[in-house]
Amino acid sequence: MRGEGVTDYIALPLQFTDGTTHATSWTTRHADGFSGEHLTALRAIVAPFARLGEIWALRRTAATLLDTYVGNRAGERILAGQIRRGHAETMQAAIWLSDLRGFTTLSDRLAPEIVVDVLNQYFDCQVPTIRRHGGEILKFMGDGLLAVFPIAKGHGNIGEVCARVLEAAREARANVDAMRYPSGEGVERFRFGVALHIGGILFGNIGGSSRLDFTCIGPAVNLAARLEKIAGRLARTVVASEAFAGACAEGWTDLGEFPVAGLSKAARVYGLAEETPRG
Amino acid sequence: MRGEGVTDYIALPLQFTDGTTHATSWTTRHADGFSGEHLTALRAIVAPFARLGEIWALRRTAATLLDTYVGNRAGERILAGQIRRGHAETMQAAIWLSDLRGFTTLSDRLAPEIVVDVLNQYFDCQVPTIRRHGGEILKFMGDGLLAVFPIAKGHGNIGEVCARVLEAAREARANVDAMRYPSGEGVERFRFGVALHIGGILFGNIGGSSRLDFTCIGPAVNLAARLEKIAGRLARTVVASEAFAGACAEGWTDLGEFPVAGLSKAARVYGLAEETPRG
Repeated sequence: MRGEGVTDYIALPLQFTDGTTHATSWTTRHADGFSGEHLTALRAIVAPFARLGEIWALRRTAATLLDTYVGNRAGERILAGQIRRGHAETMQAAIWLSDLRGFTTLSDRLAPEIVVDVLNQYFDCQVPTIRRHGGEILKFMGDGLLAVFPIAKGHGNIGEVCARVLEAAREARANVDAMRYPSGEGVERFRFGVALHIGGILFGNIGGSSRLDFTCIGPAVNLAARLEKIAGRLARTVVASEAFAGACAEGWTDLGEFPVAGLSKAARVYGLAEETPRG
Repeated sequence: MRGEGVTDYIALPLQFTDGTTHATSWTTRHADGFSGEHLTALRAIVAPFARLGEIWALRRTAATLLDTYVGNRAGERILAGQIRRGHAETMQAAIWLSDLRGFTTLSDRLAPEIVVDVLNQYFDCQVPTIRRHGGEILKFMGDGLLAVFPIAKGHGNIGEVCARVLEAAREARANVDAMRYPSGEGVERFRFGVALHIGGILFGNIGGSSRLDFTCIGPAVNLAARLEKIAGRLARTVVASEAFAGACAEGWTDLGEFPVAGLSKAARVYGLAEETPRG
């Protein structure tokens, strides 16, 4: 600090009403450093300043925690009272719907505490990868994970978005393949599946009385969920809808047409050429 | 206030840093009312008091909002940094797992905004009823709702809890039966199903990076989910596991044994005597 012309320095504690102590630090470039008068003034400021600091810190913490638990950067808007029950936002996006194969059996077999730990290690295989590739995690549903990668209006960036999604899917696949969990005398290994699709999603605020949540709704989400189930039956890791595969430069293998509940027409499902079905 | 001996009254505004204005009111029983000195002192207090008020209000709002979105009265503990990823709580409870029959088809058919509205009306048929009967909503999962009614250690109150749950189930059934939603030229009607069970649940904190959630884990939850599916196949509204039916004084109809994935033994499923299967 001396290089910046600083001649004096004082640190003063900020006592928050919640019992925690934080700190302020003050510097001066005045030739004689802080005078007694300066110090008296600073000490007089510190108590009211602590209150302001606590308000700012609390507001930031509350918004961050709400974001953490709610997703979709809704925290600040919820805190400001801008989001109420029935609020709905629509988005066009590449949709990532993944699950952990055999999770229900696993959660029947292992102690619940172990299952929580396994899930967290499993989500670590995906969440940072999804984020790094520009995705947003909308929902966890047990072992399920629904993420979106927003697509610009007019779909101008659709090829670029799909390439990023695919890169993330390959990375998550490698992470899950490498995941090991010690169990009894052996190690558990894991397999996941991810269905990729493109379409509209509605992120809507639902619930009743004093318990609310966000839910993801729309035919595109339903189709992704059905593709995910088909992927499991085909023992495939990464599958894509026609809409997603068509937007990707990548060479996909046509896995055939499958009847899909709710659709009058069978849906064509695509798999990655490098994957061979595993039993 | 005069009856309480109050001789003077003053209201002073509290300006919060977020731009909102709140109010304080002050009274005295002093024979001459507030003196000039009193008023000067009160006016001097108001600004620092506004800061404190804002901190308290913000903390309460943040905790309430987190409770609202997270459930299980976890808001305050999350805010205090006491709940982190991997945190797990176990509870013994009567388990309520309900869903809206044909929801996926509905959400394929109706506009997403309509679906959000339908869901909210549908949850209104259950949430207040569940709360009034001592239940806690743990999770919404699309159209699914998982609630628990805590059971005391040693299961001393199990009969009383089950009676409450059953009362809530009948009330919710009547509410959903009465629900109508105008759609096009007709009205939509709705059918729901609820599986009741007793067992242990783990409420665990899961996720990754800066996106967390709570999930409900355990074989009892899995069994409830499977009972729910069986209820749908049998066109029943309220079904119960052997554990729940056995704890209820109520006369149940034995609906037979059903193979259940993850269980070596088939599970016996019970229906309410007053219900006849509807096609």
